[in-house]
Amino acid sequence: MFITFEGIEGTGKTTQIKRVVEFLKETGHEVDVTLEPGGSRIGKELRKILLNMGSTDITGPCELFLYLADRAQHVSQVILPAIEAGRVVICDRFADSTIVYQGYGRGLDPKLLRELNEVAVSGCWPDLTILLDIDPEIGLKRATFRNLDEDKTQEEGRFEAESIDFHSRIREGYLTWAALNRERIAIINADQTPDEVFSQIKEKILEILKKEEK
Amino acid sequence: MFITFEGIEGTGKTTQIKRVVEFLKETGHEVDVTLEPGGSRIGKELRKILLNMGSTDITGPCELFLYLADRAQHVSQVILPAIEAGRVVICDRFADSTIVYQGYGRGLDPKLLRELNEVAVSGCWPDLTILLDIDPEIGLKRATFRNLDEDKTQEEGRFEAESIDFHSRIREGYLTWAALNRERIAIINADQTPDEVFSQIKEKILEILKKEEK
Repeated sequence: MFITFEGIEGTGKTTQIKRVVEFLKETGHEVDVTLEPGGSRIGKELRKILLNMGSTDITGPCELFLYLADRAQHVSQVILPAIEAGRVVICDRFADSTIVYQGYGRGLDPKLLRELNEVAVSGCWPDLTILLDIDPEIGLKRATFRNLDEDKTQEEGRFEAESIDFHSRIREGYLTWAALNRERIAIINADQTPDEVFSQIKEKILEILKKEEK
Repeated sequence: MFITFEGIEGTGKTTQIKRVVEFLKETGHEVDVTLEPGGSRIGKELRKILLNMGSTDITGPCELFLYLADRAQHVSQVILPAIEAGRVVICDRFADSTIVYQGYGRGLDPKLLRELNEVAVSGCWPDLTILLDIDPEIGLKRATFRNLDEDKTQEEGRFEAESIDFHSRIREGYLTWAALNRERIAIINADQTPDEVFSQIKEKILEILKKEEK
């Protein structure tokens, strides 16, 4: 089984992923947690280029192809082998991020982005995608506090540094894209307590587990 | 004007590019010489990943997207601005390399590769492509001598290290692709003296210059 988490910065993806992993392990599953960009050896080098604040000269199409390179490597070297070994793979961001950020955020054609992603994922789409939804003003405040804590503003702050307009476009893009892919993407309101958010995520996961068992 | 050079290793691309630049400068043109991968700042970082002998774990689709990322950045940051400023741009390898190496060499679909390259070059196809053609056994002997001279076998030897079968497929791929794009790609026999090769390249360039002037 393959589950991905999506959403703008500050929605609490990391916290919720930890809780989902605990829950799945408790119910007897073997779980791998990974992330994009940077889930493979080569991906780690690409992550540095993509998220570094110094990469202001990067163009939209170059950025897009770097994410696709990272994804292609990640799917074939990490995600597919784990799924084939019967493990549950949980991934922090995946193809939907590219479609939303490059499409709705940077103005590239979402249809083209879907086709390019087909090449990168070669059939390996998630069974379930949890979209954590929040007002960007609240999300960015959370992300900024976290970055100050972790002192990672220079290293990985390129997206956080975008304007609030950009993040609003991303949020709307996510909601549109989720509506177009209702069979796979579940929208969860992230402006609740972590317990409330988790209980709604758990419900979705239980639904999928039931389907898988049939 | 935009001229690219293609061919397997050891065809004498570097030598011929130098002579073409001299010739164009003598006839009053402003010329920029560039190369792929690695023609832009970000491209240089990607070149390290792509050509390093340590990158044996790189998958076909990941490699493809890295070349496309390099190209997209190169076109928009380097090639297009120079052409728009009225300069002649000469590029050592370009989109045809990807189509031939990834398509005929690694078995990806050449039609898909053409479409992906359209995204990366956004209309900026060469006016003339010089394909230097040689028997791979001769070409690789030349390339190996050069690498020993320059001690670059570890840094950039990933393609030279492929089998003779691989390079034969590449050569045949180039010839097929050139036949499908006769209006743009000129095949020059590289198993002649440098003077003979250059005189045939010069002829092709003079043809294109005449067309441009009309």
